[in-house]
Amino acid sequence: MALKKFDAEKYLKDGAKTYSLRGEVEALIDRITAKEYDSVCMLGIGGTWAEWYPVVEVAKKYTDLPIYLENAGEFLVKNKKHITDKTLVFTSSASGNTMEILKAVKYCKDQGINVYGFTKDETTPLANLLTDPIYNACGDCEHSYLLYYFVMLRILKNRGEFPHYDRWADQMENLFKDLLAAREKFEPRAIEIAKTYAHEPYTMFTGSGVLWGETYLFTMCILEEMQWVRTKTVSSADFFHGPLELVDDRVPVFVIKGEDEYRPLDERVERFVKEHTKKAVIIDTKDYILDGIDDEFRVICSPMIITAILTERLAIHYEQNTGHSLEFRRYYRQFEY
Amino acid sequence: MALKKFDAEKYLKDGAKTYSLRGEVEALIDRITAKEYDSVCMLGIGGTWAEWYPVVEVAKKYTDLPIYLENAGEFLVKNKKHITDKTLVFTSSASGNTMEILKAVKYCKDQGINVYGFTKDETTPLANLLTDPIYNACGDCEHSYLLYYFVMLRILKNRGEFPHYDRWADQMENLFKDLLAAREKFEPRAIEIAKTYAHEPYTMFTGSGVLWGETYLFTMCILEEMQWVRTKTVSSADFFHGPLELVDDRVPVFVIKGEDEYRPLDERVERFVKEHTKKAVIIDTKDYILDGIDDEFRVICSPMIITAILTERLAIHYEQNTGHSLEFRRYYRQFEY
Repeated sequence: MALKKFDAEKYLKDGAKTYSLRGEVEALIDRITAKEYDSVCMLGIGGTWAEWYPVVEVAKKYTDLPIYLENAGEFLVKNKKHITDKTLVFTSSASGNTMEILKAVKYCKDQGINVYGFTKDETTPLANLLTDPIYNACGDCEHSYLLYYFVMLRILKNRGEFPHYDRWADQMENLFKDLLAAREKFEPRAIEIAKTYAHEPYTMFTGSGVLWGETYLFTMCILEEMQWVRTKTVSSADFFHGPLELVDDRVPVFVIKGEDEYRPLDERVERFVKEHTKKAVIIDTKDYILDGIDDEFRVICSPMIITAILTERLAIHYEQNTGHSLEFRRYYRQFEY
Repeated sequence: MALKKFDAEKYLKDGAKTYSLRGEVEALIDRITAKEYDSVCMLGIGGTWAEWYPVVEVAKKYTDLPIYLENAGEFLVKNKKHITDKTLVFTSSASGNTMEILKAVKYCKDQGINVYGFTKDETTPLANLLTDPIYNACGDCEHSYLLYYFVMLRILKNRGEFPHYDRWADQMENLFKDLLAAREKFEPRAIEIAKTYAHEPYTMFTGSGVLWGETYLFTMCILEEMQWVRTKTVSSADFFHGPLELVDDRVPVFVIKGEDEYRPLDERVERFVKEHTKKAVIIDTKDYILDGIDDEFRVICSPMIITAILTERLAIHYEQNTGHSLEFRRYYRQFEY
């Protein structure tokens, strides 16, 4: 099935380009992990915070190394004594001019702490601040996820904590064609879901574990920012401590189901909402085949599936129904605030 | 001014009763910190998670000791290798029958890990599971906060990290009369705010730092669970990465301003919303005097101010306007799910 507003050929070419950065990322990580370090910090805000989220969650399954996921806005005001010149600090900003990121990176540099990471090209303000910047020209979510995982899992490999790194990284060459297939499979549902729910005055979303970041990102950075669609996003565990009371046949609830150890929490939400609203929408990463990728790596890839089918595909179809361009903003980055 | 549905005399008596538990809490903490321990874990879910939140946030300003705030629902499914018999584990459930809490405490006990904490009396299922349970008969939010702070700050005192403990704890004898005065000051605004916004189809809330837990609790456990009022709750830093685009004169935004280092983030939201919606509601803990309590302890007490004026007072006045009893639930604890 043809995908609306999507150039499959270009997508696969861009994927290959992103994958080709593997060697550069690995060389950087090998260089910086050869020196002494005692912690890792990922700096993000909004979408980038949400994209680092699963990478940190996954890493914590394999290591006890302190890994801090910092919201760059909060980082600027909070106590930062845990971040020292023994911390490996990474960040990312496609535009390279996200104000909070720039300020947080400048703070680190002023303390003599190098910051590594990604921006779209060498012209951005962030490129000037990063040590050995890596240029992520494609920048869309799964490209970012892949590069962030190269960073984090290579660190773990070098610590002897993720011995499957080479096999995993080799298999990531199949990622983009798998995510294209996931898009094609989801497309008819995307059309249907968007037609049914794009005009709802309020939509609830649940997610958990490795998928919490993407649940947060899709609702906050896509539906709210780009579509002016009102959402409530709550973790699967917390759903049962307040938001459940709002559910009835008027309220759409999207249940985003993952494949990590939090899945039973998602399944509990699924059982509840199927019984208490006619507007239950179940999105399950398990429904999507990852050909050429071992099952043990599915959890790692699960946020990439969600970003492909929701953050990219469903967004396009919401736009088709709301008539609200995904490019339009009235405030965000339009003026100083 | 008389407070609607509020017995001031009983409130002060209950406060004195809660304060009188100080000695029992201190004796427990002194006993358990005399043995070796290497971390602290607070187990909560929904309202109790949110109430432990500021206590953990405050503690982290004074110590590098690992302190884990665990959502009991997630705790049950996630990796728990960081919780050992060297961890001091605390929990709380007024009803004493919160399913996730009971299961999480049973898990700990099965591992030979004692769990300490609070429940309303000796008849609850939780009372049977806790080691040396302490009975918090009053149970409302500020009572819980006070007891949780006695726990956490006494631990820090015993580590030499909060030397002001005795002065702080002595001054807490003034807390309940101060929170009564805060209620009396806020009452006319509570009436006005509820009359104006209780029927809104959607209301946004921002908060940060030590007040994030209470922001989360008021919206999720009070407005959603007890009033079926739809909310969006977002941290002050993240507000600028998505939700801001939704704001215009139709959208009420409640900005909850605290007094810790995150305050500049709240002030940034305040400036934005005052300019972009006529429905900006600013709630600032600074407006409330804490007589007999030193200024350096205001941040510690700030969630108690919010719980007094929003979670208790504003809830009462929402109920007066929605006609939806705060006691009514259609699902929560009504049957198995």
